[in-house]
Amino acid sequence: MRGGIDLGGTKIQAVVVNSAGRPVADVRAPTPVDGGPADVARAMASAIRDAAAAAGVEPRALAGVGVGSPGEVDAAAGVVSNVVNLPGWDGGFALGDALASDLGVPVAIGNDVQVATNAEARLGAGKPYSSLLGVFWGSGVGGGIVLNGRPWVGRGAAAEIGHVVVRRGGARCPCGRRGCMEAYAGRVAMELRARQLVARGESTVLFELMEARGRDRLTSRIWAMALEQGDPLAERLVERAVKALGAGVASAVNLLDVEAVVIGGGLGVRFGEPLVHRIREAMMPHLFADDRPPVVAPATLGDLGGAIGAALLVPARGPRLTAQRAG
Amino acid sequence: MRGGIDLGGTKIQAVVVNSAGRPVADVRAPTPVDGGPADVARAMASAIRDAAAAAGVEPRALAGVGVGSPGEVDAAAGVVSNVVNLPGWDGGFALGDALASDLGVPVAIGNDVQVATNAEARLGAGKPYSSLLGVFWGSGVGGGIVLNGRPWVGRGAAAEIGHVVVRRGGARCPCGRRGCMEAYAGRVAMELRARQLVARGESTVLFELMEARGRDRLTSRIWAMALEQGDPLAERLVERAVKALGAGVASAVNLLDVEAVVIGGGLGVRFGEPLVHRIREAMMPHLFADDRPPVVAPATLGDLGGAIGAALLVPARGPRLTAQRAG
Repeated sequence: MRGGIDLGGTKIQAVVVNSAGRPVADVRAPTPVDGGPADVARAMASAIRDAAAAAGVEPRALAGVGVGSPGEVDAAAGVVSNVVNLPGWDGGFALGDALASDLGVPVAIGNDVQVATNAEARLGAGKPYSSLLGVFWGSGVGGGIVLNGRPWVGRGAAAEIGHVVVRRGGARCPCGRRGCMEAYAGRVAMELRARQLVARGESTVLFELMEARGRDRLTSRIWAMALEQGDPLAERLVERAVKALGAGVASAVNLLDVEAVVIGGGLGVRFGEPLVHRIREAMMPHLFADDRPPVVAPATLGDLGGAIGAALLVPARGPRLTAQRAG
Repeated sequence: MRGGIDLGGTKIQAVVVNSAGRPVADVRAPTPVDGGPADVARAMASAIRDAAAAAGVEPRALAGVGVGSPGEVDAAAGVVSNVVNLPGWDGGFALGDALASDLGVPVAIGNDVQVATNAEARLGAGKPYSSLLGVFWGSGVGGGIVLNGRPWVGRGAAAEIGHVVVRRGGARCPCGRRGCMEAYAGRVAMELRARQLVARGESTVLFELMEARGRDRLTSRIWAMALEQGDPLAERLVERAVKALGAGVASAVNLLDVEAVVIGGGLGVRFGEPLVHRIREAMMPHLFADDRPPVVAPATLGDLGGAIGAALLVPARGPRLTAQRAG
């Protein structure tokens, strides 16, 4: 069995998967908001220990633990740098070494969105296809590319689909640039826009729902609840996001001509097929080969996709042999 | 030696290349404006015969002839369909068979922009890089992608960079869609825009230059001459094209993270480094990994790149052996 951890800005999702990559246990813990990378690493190790316990295995019996991490990942060195939404993680931190010495097993680290794409490609909605684009629609919009069955990472920073331009000179993106797809479709940007519109006197149930649920930000669930209630402002902002996703994803398909697009992420998983259908429709006016659009499907591994993909970074293998240990 | 033909809307460019892929003879002929595909095929065969004569070889002594073709190319069948800017070529035509029986040598057919990208990758500006994006800036804006040293064609229609969206809901593209990069940067769209502005009372030397040169459209040379004369309208429209190219190419780099971008095509080759420099600058505000932008370089094979790339479709080989002929 292998362990996998999806390290997010608000939660740490840990899984233990079997030899087929299917989760046999999963544990979720909050990401520490104080301290630094070493504290985050301790919380990650603790989550894996809990998941191993739930799976009925000793952590040391795992073939290894994979991590899907935000920020800049140096996979070979096991170092993660510049994680903007985690406490005190401005420089580089040897996350691989920290976890390996804490847990006593090999650790592999990859980019969070790329491992989630890989999970969907190997075990989820992308399984029938050899080329696909993963679109992770959440606080930002991340992407992952698989071509000929293998991840395409370019020089290490490929698949930044959130920063494909959909309107030159358009809205300011949280990244500081203008007109990025994420400036319209990312949950952070959508919340900012909702707050601006409310400050201008528009009304919405979004922030009432937020307070009723004791949250300080608009989660994917809150957006879904507002849509269910027919809130016009929420509907308008979601439609704006869908239009941007349609243009940006169609641009990516015009370039890559992949067989399939898999839509995941917090909002993607929450909204599911009804919104994926709207994205599919919004792509059509911009698709060059519109007589044979790619399959556009919701992610099927849900919230666990990132952690499962992280576990897949660890090669599957049988029980460790004594001879190898001695050798 | 191998033959190569770049089939364009206005000209047929034929070359004969040596075993290193370097041209030893080149011949240019006008593309027939009347008749149908069979007439175009005859003109292509004639151009190759002239190029072979200039190279001092019999056409039958060529290892084969490659063709870079517009329209929809079925490389396996040697069939080209739906070439919108050539006479009577709405359906499919077995161009490979027609040329092979006329010339008595094997014929290979590929997409015009993809073969030109391949030529730049193997022999031109892209030679040092294993991943690159070719951008062919001419009447339209075509693209070609090379990843890990091999063309990426997706399901056959990849690299349509001209139809990456740079402004959702923006200008009408010659393809009928809105906001495509080509709607701002393609020479056909630029001429249309210039005519609209003149109809609204703006002045420019563009159409005077066109008439003085006895042309009925704004060629790349006419745009270059107008820029040299400091024509404000031409400068404005070129700047608009450069801004669109900057956003669209940056979007592609955000997705692919290639090592290099090679800019060719009629306008790209005509304008060369000064305009490539401006495109490079226009990319910067949209580039996600802007601390290490890709190399952006002008194509170095010039007008012959397409024909050379076509020739590269034919495997290089030594003189034909009698034993093989008998076998």
